Amino acid sequence: MLLKKPAVWYLIGQMDLTNIYKPIKGDLKKVEQSLEEIADAEFSLLAELLAYTLKDGGKRIRPALTLLSGKFYVYDTALLIPMAAAIELLHTATLVHDDIVDNSPVRRGKPTVSRAWGENRALLLGDYLFAKAGSLVAGTENLRVIKLFSQTLMTISGGELKQTGVTFALARARDYYFAWVSAKTACLFSTATESGAILSRASEEAIEAMRDYGHNLGMGFQIVDDVLDFVGEEDELGKPVGSDLREGTMTLPSILFAESYPEDNLIKNVVENKDMESVALAVEKIRSSSVIDECLALASGFCSRASRAVEKLPDKSARRSLLELAAYIVERQK
Amino acid sequence: MLLKKPAVWYLIGQMDLTNIYKPIKGDLKKVEQSLEEIADAEFSLLAELLAYTLKDGGKRIRPALTLLSGKFYVYDTALLIPMAAAIELLHTATLVHDDIVDNSPVRRGKPTVSRAWGENRALLLGDYLFAKAGSLVAGTENLRVIKLFSQTLMTISGGELKQTGVTFALARARDYYFAWVSAKTACLFSTATESGAILSRASEEAIEAMRDYGHNLGMGFQIVDDVLDFVGEEDELGKPVGSDLREGTMTLPSILFAESYPEDNLIKNVVENKDMESVALAVEKIRSSSVIDECLALASGFCSRASRAVEKLPDKSARRSLLELAAYIVERQK
Repeated sequence: MLLKKPAVWYLIGQMDLTNIYKPIKGDLKKVEQSLEEIADAEFSLLAELLAYTLKDGGKRIRPALTLLSGKFYVYDTALLIPMAAAIELLHTATLVHDDIVDNSPVRRGKPTVSRAWGENRALLLGDYLFAKAGSLVAGTENLRVIKLFSQTLMTISGGELKQTGVTFALARARDYYFAWVSAKTACLFSTATESGAILSRASEEAIEAMRDYGHNLGMGFQIVDDVLDFVGEEDELGKPVGSDLREGTMTLPSILFAESYPEDNLIKNVVENKDMESVALAVEKIRSSSVIDECLALASGFCSRASRAVEKLPDKSARRSLLELAAYIVERQK
Repeated sequence: MLLKKPAVWYLIGQMDLTNIYKPIKGDLKKVEQSLEEIADAEFSLLAELLAYTLKDGGKRIRPALTLLSGKFYVYDTALLIPMAAAIELLHTATLVHDDIVDNSPVRRGKPTVSRAWGENRALLLGDYLFAKAGSLVAGTENLRVIKLFSQTLMTISGGELKQTGVTFALARARDYYFAWVSAKTACLFSTATESGAILSRASEEAIEAMRDYGHNLGMGFQIVDDVLDFVGEEDELGKPVGSDLREGTMTLPSILFAESYPEDNLIKNVVENKDMESVALAVEKIRSSSVIDECLALASGFCSRASRAVEKLPDKSARRSLLELAAYIVERQK
């Protein structure tokens, strides 16, 4: 799949996550191992559910962010590895619950927990994952990080709850979208980076820089994710194209399209009147419109702000990784 | 409603919670106020949901336990009141999620959150309540209590998850039941008392005594609750009689009945084959059998063990309250 490149795109040549993750390669493997240990430790049903959700679980961007953010001052793996694992567990928990709320059939190319095991087990698994995450964070014995973590879960669940009360109102849709993305994605990204900074005893200024980086990266990341939902291919996405619209969720591409063509009721009909037959047409129209470029330009803007935020950090290989990651986010093909 | 009194019943005359709560009356009100403040603090949908679940919410036994358990040594309300509120929030969160899992229509005489607001909002509200509870506990800045709290949520959700994998096997039903009650009820009771003890700087011996008390009280409490589901009246219970059986859950009365009458397939048909027409008959048979007395005798045994556990604590009014509460649990009419 090829994205049309927008004018403001930062071209930085060939990049992949393996290179970006280089400074933390060994420790990211240890995070993976600790996730596997969690999956092995309990009674058989729980072990099966944990293995299903935790093994081969995506790109591990969030735990990588914690480790990378911990690389600038006192890099203490005894704190940073459990913290990174907790961040991934919290992320997984929210995905498991989100898939119930959105009634999603597929994630990462396989049935969601709620489809494969039923909604009740998915709900309880999510609760368990929240608790396990909290337990790992408590193990760091760092009160600031502990407080940050529970605040993050409040922001995420509160944001999702708020979203359930939103009705179609085009005039406010863009603001709602950014607030929602800030709560559901950027908040966890910034907690990932901020906790890495705190646990490595960074200065207040450096902590703030990494928090800013995480927030802006998360905003950019989610926008690109929402674009990919339109321009990606099913086998690359691991779920059907246009899933968001199908589930009645307006994301930035459909919002910008509706703003650009206020006389066209296509999106409104899909989202509000559940006109599922129009989904394919809406996806096609959005895909071939200038809206995709506009979204990517906005994503690029966030990623540039992320990059600027970490410019003041010490010039270490981890900083290069953070900068490359910000570029990768908008450039990623998947 | 009158329960038939079993021979081992501890008769202690007239008692009510108002008297039992006397040593902590003012502070329990402050817990109530802090729950109300939580309900007032957020956007309107969340405020409405929080008010619906937190106001007039039952007997407040768990937060009372935290306060009473804090009364023996350094009684610090700045720590104990938020901790007690957190215990009640965690309890509420598990109720909200349980009502989704059990598909329960009614709790405390009004529709459950999932019935009144939909399962999605109930799910997200529960997540928010978990997070808010965690945030209050983090505010105590006591690492031991923070760790205990996340362990408790793991035990509760893990226990519920395990229960979803249990199939009808009479030979193991009683063991499963006690393990389940230990995870879902006794664990939170013991966390309520243990956290009160820890935060008031009790000795290790006193902490263990209060943990034991909480565990045994919780076991007794749940057994009586499960008995009341059979012998209570709908308007007193706030939900239909026989709700557990109707939802396919075997509790101690139905387990003991099935053990006593192994040739009678009534319970098996209700639980396994969802034969809803037989619920009323099953309730009637159990209600008029000796099984109810046997259950209450077991509950009394747990409450006696609870009482014995706190005998070694200093002779203060709070100890009298804990002893009276253990007696109240089996004697309560509702």
